[in-house]
Amino acid sequence: MRIGIIGVGTVGSGVVEIIEKKQPEWKALGLTIEIGGICARTDEELAPYLARGYRVSTSADEVIADSSVQVIVEVAGGYELPRKWITKALEQGKHVVTANKALLAKYGHELFPLATRNKCHVLFEAAVGGGIPIIRTIQEGLTGNQIERLSCIINGTCNYILTQMSQLDLSFADALQEAQAKGYAEADPTFDIEGIDAAHKTALLASLASGTRVDFQKIHVTGITGVSAQDIEYAKEFDCSIKLLGNFRRMGKQIDARVHPCLIPNDHLLSSVNGVLNAVYLECDNLGPTLQTGAGAGKMPTASAVAADLVSLARSLGGRAPIPMDWFREENCASLMPIDNLETRYYFHLTTKDSCGVLASITSILAKHKISIESIIQKNVKDPGKVSIVLITEKSLESEVKAALAEIDALDAVTEASRMIRFL
Amino acid sequence: MRIGIIGVGTVGSGVVEIIEKKQPEWKALGLTIEIGGICARTDEELAPYLARGYRVSTSADEVIADSSVQVIVEVAGGYELPRKWITKALEQGKHVVTANKALLAKYGHELFPLATRNKCHVLFEAAVGGGIPIIRTIQEGLTGNQIERLSCIINGTCNYILTQMSQLDLSFADALQEAQAKGYAEADPTFDIEGIDAAHKTALLASLASGTRVDFQKIHVTGITGVSAQDIEYAKEFDCSIKLLGNFRRMGKQIDARVHPCLIPNDHLLSSVNGVLNAVYLECDNLGPTLQTGAGAGKMPTASAVAADLVSLARSLGGRAPIPMDWFREENCASLMPIDNLETRYYFHLTTKDSCGVLASITSILAKHKISIESIIQKNVKDPGKVSIVLITEKSLESEVKAALAEIDALDAVTEASRMIRFL
Repeated sequence: MRIGIIGVGTVGSGVVEIIEKKQPEWKALGLTIEIGGICARTDEELAPYLARGYRVSTSADEVIADSSVQVIVEVAGGYELPRKWITKALEQGKHVVTANKALLAKYGHELFPLATRNKCHVLFEAAVGGGIPIIRTIQEGLTGNQIERLSCIINGTCNYILTQMSQLDLSFADALQEAQAKGYAEADPTFDIEGIDAAHKTALLASLASGTRVDFQKIHVTGITGVSAQDIEYAKEFDCSIKLLGNFRRMGKQIDARVHPCLIPNDHLLSSVNGVLNAVYLECDNLGPTLQTGAGAGKMPTASAVAADLVSLARSLGGRAPIPMDWFREENCASLMPIDNLETRYYFHLTTKDSCGVLASITSILAKHKISIESIIQKNVKDPGKVSIVLITEKSLESEVKAALAEIDALDAVTEASRMIRFL
Repeated sequence: MRIGIIGVGTVGSGVVEIIEKKQPEWKALGLTIEIGGICARTDEELAPYLARGYRVSTSADEVIADSSVQVIVEVAGGYELPRKWITKALEQGKHVVTANKALLAKYGHELFPLATRNKCHVLFEAAVGGGIPIIRTIQEGLTGNQIERLSCIINGTCNYILTQMSQLDLSFADALQEAQAKGYAEADPTFDIEGIDAAHKTALLASLASGTRVDFQKIHVTGITGVSAQDIEYAKEFDCSIKLLGNFRRMGKQIDARVHPCLIPNDHLLSSVNGVLNAVYLECDNLGPTLQTGAGAGKMPTASAVAADLVSLARSLGGRAPIPMDWFREENCASLMPIDNLETRYYFHLTTKDSCGVLASITSILAKHKISIESIIQKNVKDPGKVSIVLITEKSLESEVKAALAEIDALDAVTEASRMIRFL
């Protein structure tokens, strides 16, 4: 399968990187994904790719017209040019992979039917939720379900600002400024903080979930500029946090779709999705509630979603090459690390007599086995004369831990077998 | 596509239900999934299906031998019989969908290569994590990534027991008894509480994540019987919770795979996965950390995963029928519920003069608009003579809320425009 890539900005350059790295692995699975052409606006942007031997062009039309190219990857962004390119590609029977949510929200009703007429796929895993495979989950993983509701944290900029306001007691203006300094918000942040980006993505998700076209221009949108530090403080008093949510719900023959700040009770799965993380929470008729969370933006997460779409296309073009299960063979057995080689933090619970020098004996055994103590709690238990000693170790080796505990349990002062639990 | 179903217990009966309900919808997408035969051990179990006109048999071999059946759905459970059935089905070139993790963990190294030789698929979304589409996520959604680590809460029984111990301060024995009373633990709970079921699923996930066979009999397994209420209390003092985790990690040429109780810091995504919920946490090279959570067991969640596998097979057998995007057409536009029709709980923030009767005026306006107050906080703000009134309403209608706030803002005593935030 030969692909043409339009755009080598952040996402596009990541796509090239992943393809270069993954090509041997994919080839072993019978999937050939080759870059047949790269397009960018300027020769400067193209120079490093030209140097590596790729066919390059500043004309997208030229890349699309190349008859050896079967798939166009559009990662340039914008509205009108990508619309023109994708239309042309589909008219020529080429499949399309795009990360452009704005384009699909605005022109999807035109591009998807065109694709169907031309028996082409338009895949867009990267357009919503970055690298979280949420499109695939809705379109393939949940085909045995009807999605009743969906709530999503789908704009990392807004979630970062609201998280910082909540955790550091910042004002909206200060949190925005900090987000800009860290590169999580653009110099002109309107598109994000007014909820427009979230509306694009919510419209796409609501469309997929409902099987109808949800026009992003018709859904209610309130951004986060009206959320004050005071609101966040009061929300905490009600055991809630405030997040910008995209919401979808079936309401008989109507669709309820809207984007606005929401108070979320702190025991809800969405309330602990903080910082730039994205998350999609779904309620399905058969499965009940489910949540998927991860990086919603960034070069490599988004590029990895484009790569997943490319592998999916390569499989389907090659007569649906099966998903590999052959490594399940006997001769392909993994070499397992012995648990004794594990290095992690440990929790110990020791029960000892309340006598002088016990702790000294224990700590010297630990020291001998190179086990450092991170924290320790000592408490008298109900049973008089007995003491509970709880230790958290620093990273230690399992074999040493076992040897140390055996020695500790052999001490006269230790009255019960000690318990050990590993840390994640 | 005609399928034969072996087993009509909890999951099998759910599969039939979903197929009956979803058939028209699937047909509209060009996917025909018909039940060509149902097998169970006894005529009693089969009677309701016979009454509904299905071909039934107490002989699995008969269903498998039916030349009109292309796919065998094995939802009977057990080891040796399903092994025999699936072997026979694959030898006859039939695809297999199974929910049987124990079978795949034990005999996958024999069944998957047999499937490959016969150009057949063995799909098993229902075998791990019930209805969470985690197999599909790993096999298709994350093909642009390498999975570096995986930690999963994959046994609902154990997670329920540990959650109850933590939240209600129960002993292990009491929590187990309660889980049994609620049907979350079997009469003989050994398989779950000793971590064997978790080891089956962890072995499958580790195999998929590593591309090598991870033998479940070789991985370290500690169950939860040794976790005491005291340990959970101490863990809380260290701001941790205790969960039974299946862990996988790449360690150079070795694989680290193990199942045991773990202390998890409370700010980790996995720590808030409580009750019978399952979750799979992944760390990937490109995507970074991601989590998927939902119902890990139960009739309809598990059956919905079987249904997703059937749709996937039907698509691939029909020359990879494209995923439908046609409803994206203009004429297929959703009817959106106007935001004024929304009914939810609201947060109001009002700023008023500190004068007599203000609250009375406000509450009477709210009453007129049928808005009930759930909670109220009144505080003097720094500015002397000003008061912040924060209200949480019960479920109210957006149009009434807007009208009420307009009237409130028109009051002389109200000094700043009031703020409103909706609840999730």
